[in-house]
Amino acid sequence: MESHVFEVWAPTPDTVRVSVDGTVHPMTKSSQGWWTAEVPAADGARYGFLIDDDDAVIPDPRSPRQPDGVHAASALHTLDTDVWTDESWTGRRLPGSVIYELHIGTFTAEGTFDAAAAKLDHLVDLGVTFVEIMPVNGFNGTHNWGYDGVLWYTVHEGYGGPDGLQRLVNACHARGIGVVLDVVYNHLGPSGNYLEKFGPYMSQGANSWGQTVNVAEEHSDPVRRYIIENALRWLSDFHVDALRLDAVHALADNRAVHILEQLAIETERLSAHVRRPLSLIAESDLNDPKLISPRAAGGYGLDAQWDDDIHHAIHAAVSGEKQGYYADFGHLETLATTLRRGFFHAGTYSSFRGRVHGKPIDVRTIRGSSLVAYTTTHDQVGNRAIGDRPGFYLDGGQLAIKAALVLTSPYTPMLFMGEEWNASSPFQFFTSHPEPELGKATAEGRKSEFASHGWDSDDIPDPQDVATYDRSKLIWDEVSDDEHARVLDCYRSLIALRRDRIEITDPWLDHIGVDYDEDKGWISVNRAGVRLVCNLSPDPVTVPFGGVPLLWWDAPTQDETASTTTVPGHSFVVLD
Amino acid sequence: MESHVFEVWAPTPDTVRVSVDGTVHPMTKSSQGWWTAEVPAADGARYGFLIDDDDAVIPDPRSPRQPDGVHAASALHTLDTDVWTDESWTGRRLPGSVIYELHIGTFTAEGTFDAAAAKLDHLVDLGVTFVEIMPVNGFNGTHNWGYDGVLWYTVHEGYGGPDGLQRLVNACHARGIGVVLDVVYNHLGPSGNYLEKFGPYMSQGANSWGQTVNVAEEHSDPVRRYIIENALRWLSDFHVDALRLDAVHALADNRAVHILEQLAIETERLSAHVRRPLSLIAESDLNDPKLISPRAAGGYGLDAQWDDDIHHAIHAAVSGEKQGYYADFGHLETLATTLRRGFFHAGTYSSFRGRVHGKPIDVRTIRGSSLVAYTTTHDQVGNRAIGDRPGFYLDGGQLAIKAALVLTSPYTPMLFMGEEWNASSPFQFFTSHPEPELGKATAEGRKSEFASHGWDSDDIPDPQDVATYDRSKLIWDEVSDDEHARVLDCYRSLIALRRDRIEITDPWLDHIGVDYDEDKGWISVNRAGVRLVCNLSPDPVTVPFGGVPLLWWDAPTQDETASTTTVPGHSFVVLD
Repeated sequence: MESHVFEVWAPTPDTVRVSVDGTVHPMTKSSQGWWTAEVPAADGARYGFLIDDDDAVIPDPRSPRQPDGVHAASALHTLDTDVWTDESWTGRRLPGSVIYELHIGTFTAEGTFDAAAAKLDHLVDLGVTFVEIMPVNGFNGTHNWGYDGVLWYTVHEGYGGPDGLQRLVNACHARGIGVVLDVVYNHLGPSGNYLEKFGPYMSQGANSWGQTVNVAEEHSDPVRRYIIENALRWLSDFHVDALRLDAVHALADNRAVHILEQLAIETERLSAHVRRPLSLIAESDLNDPKLISPRAAGGYGLDAQWDDDIHHAIHAAVSGEKQGYYADFGHLETLATTLRRGFFHAGTYSSFRGRVHGKPIDVRTIRGSSLVAYTTTHDQVGNRAIGDRPGFYLDGGQLAIKAALVLTSPYTPMLFMGEEWNASSPFQFFTSHPEPELGKATAEGRKSEFASHGWDSDDIPDPQDVATYDRSKLIWDEVSDDEHARVLDCYRSLIALRRDRIEITDPWLDHIGVDYDEDKGWISVNRAGVRLVCNLSPDPVTVPFGGVPLLWWDAPTQDETASTTTVPGHSFVVLD
Repeated sequence: MESHVFEVWAPTPDTVRVSVDGTVHPMTKSSQGWWTAEVPAADGARYGFLIDDDDAVIPDPRSPRQPDGVHAASALHTLDTDVWTDESWTGRRLPGSVIYELHIGTFTAEGTFDAAAAKLDHLVDLGVTFVEIMPVNGFNGTHNWGYDGVLWYTVHEGYGGPDGLQRLVNACHARGIGVVLDVVYNHLGPSGNYLEKFGPYMSQGANSWGQTVNVAEEHSDPVRRYIIENALRWLSDFHVDALRLDAVHALADNRAVHILEQLAIETERLSAHVRRPLSLIAESDLNDPKLISPRAAGGYGLDAQWDDDIHHAIHAAVSGEKQGYYADFGHLETLATTLRRGFFHAGTYSSFRGRVHGKPIDVRTIRGSSLVAYTTTHDQVGNRAIGDRPGFYLDGGQLAIKAALVLTSPYTPMLFMGEEWNASSPFQFFTSHPEPELGKATAEGRKSEFASHGWDSDDIPDPQDVATYDRSKLIWDEVSDDEHARVLDCYRSLIALRRDRIEITDPWLDHIGVDYDEDKGWISVNRAGVRLVCNLSPDPVTVPFGGVPLLWWDAPTQDETASTTTVPGHSFVVLD
């Protein structure tokens, strides 16, 4: 049997031992807090560490596989490189492409990587060029959204484990689709986090989801390596093309080199090494252009960031919703400002936050394609009380308007799975905490949160009820039904138009012209000749723009000279 | 009697009343959380606010004067503008000048602004161009360092109150000396902080000195105004020329526009308005060039920051001390690197912090004069166990070497009061908490801190003992004593040379040449022909540089061709 060098960073304990297939071996400490032991072990060997006098075998913080869950022994696991057939994959630049966000557990009935791979024909037909996979790291339980991970190097076994992820990435590349993986470095889940037994992984501060990760305090260098090596591992070993970094505003880092800047530098280096574009996308609530500014301009140099303002501006204008963080949105003027500037809150007062928020984007140096724009995401659907999609309360034309605004934009559009056919299934908040007290606290927290906003708590789905999970799965049979097929056709046509007409992906925000009539309810976005006109009102409107209609929801009419166009209520038209 | 509009930002209480000279008046709330009442009141009127049903009269957060201490009523107070005689003062640019840090209470026996003003001849003779006054804001007790302030708009009565500060600034300007005021916005002192009764001034987080100030969370806009208006008030109403911002690394601000950037913008605007240079100096432990980078390069655009690395590099090399944060310093190589690059820790491992620290300064875009360099400060003396100045354990030549390295540098040099004559008085940590429990906790905290570093706690001065304060006062009679006068003469000559030879204030770090011999113990800094040679060893050394000796501690000797120079032990020479 070959031998394997087991190693773990563990400056905290006095002694660390490694258990390999039931036999305990001593480990040797180096000066940097690392412990090592060379032990005969084959691929698949079960192992874990014993801290000081404790006889409990706990998983490896860098465990590549957890066949029996996050509380059990780790398993040695090496990807079979013979599986890869993507030698000819040269990657894709993410900015300006079309992303499709999906959750492995609910994208298909089976809820596995392999089942997802079987749906790739649909995505190729749709025309998206990247899939974005919600977090797949190791968490306790059988199903959840993925943001409660505790073993970041592991792939959830229920989805198919690391080999399954490898097969899905390979299948995507075979279809010309890039892969974005959602990764969470700002907190750890409530069950299965053994990191503090090894070293000072956590800091004293807290964010919305618990203790913050130690990326800036004493001994933070190895914690930063833990994060960065995790990120690079997906990009190199798993051939992933981009990472979506969850809630970066919750990283407590005041070091002179922010961890995001450090990660961007190392990702660029890896990109040069593997000779394909690698991209980093931040989820950020800061409206801070620093994230997507070049490093020469004092920025972190990330490729893109999610832009909730665009979502809120479109959603509130189309739906009329004003609750919570939609309060400052709803007018076409707000929408026009947001479309032109990327951030609505750019040094302006945010009533939801109770303070001035954000900073203007310099539209001469930052491309609009650095902003990811969407009309639904897992959050924008799933964080609603009942996880209802926009199609539950908007008509097809309203959905089409939202889609057209995003898909003809200079931003990087993103869809959330099922959006493209107005899926009838909700996407609800679901968990599967095996610990009854944790499950109860989660369910009660969810109900009381929405009760405080006037909901009857009986109407809030129980996140721990498996029916909530099942209800959130896409129903693929419905796709060919007339109403769904019409929406899908519209999405396909918009994405095809985006591919065919280069003007649409011109990334510079100062090249956009926006006109609107607040009273009549129409807005028009002009992209060097390709003009989108949306009629948000229920009644037909005549707009002072002519041109050849290329695409629409309900057919427009024009006068003889084609100098004006009449757009039916709740519809859009693209004019050439 | 004229009437006065009393106003206070107080979103928290249901009712606020104002007591003016013993009569209580109702106040009216506006939508922004401000309460106002117009009440007849003359200058000097005693007033305060009553919160909800509480009959206690508490001071105004923006109180201009607290005649009876920080727990008592505020007093209306307007500066008498007729006092100003500085109409012709056009200000001074701070970068590259020479700053003199002083503590009003211990600078003179009297411990007042007026007594300080009477010493300005000494400072003019010395040649310094700015005084930097340690914090003078309102604190509880009679004397302390000033960092326990709770009423930021007030001037400590014991020093002479606001009128006294006005007189001192006026007197400085009359002598051509600019004024830097030390201000503290990162925490409040432990006694007399009533701010939370008015509104959410404090945030949930904590730093080394207590709760952090709410500069980024909900309702932080008025708190930021509270800070910024305070800063601008010193610069405008009190004619102050620059602010030294205490421990900015302890400001918890992740907003897209950092409060330091906002302050820099508003300070520049005020500077244009008052037509004299106004400067901002940060005390920062971050080694982050962002603070002093131009805003166009993503920085905050502050004028300068304190640079502890320069202090540590000089002090450790000259003194041989290796404890605490000196651990990574001590070699001439380290000193040479620091002198050339400004930061020693610039992405390098800091053993004191247990992590990588800092980021390199771009020496092509950031001037060395943006870094404040010093061989003593209130902290570097007073935070030692017994507050001993370098002259207590170094000889005159060693002090002269330190002074020469700082005063011939491209940085902005700063002296700490008394340094210039090697004052025999220590500068110890002193407090005067009237609350016995607070006094006891402070004294015990101090003793136990140093006990943990091997000190006998009986040797640590009791901060609450008034003798500790008295002992820290400068002894001006000693200045003319031979040994002290010799040091003073050396400082005067160095500052005069700095003024006379423009090469010395060339701010660009890439124009510096540094040579050294680690074994022989000499280091040489070449500034376009003006060369400083320091011999840190006790024995004479011969260095391969000639030139005309301009200035020295002990006289050097040269061979016939003047191609080499022999510098006595513990001495320096400046060669032309």
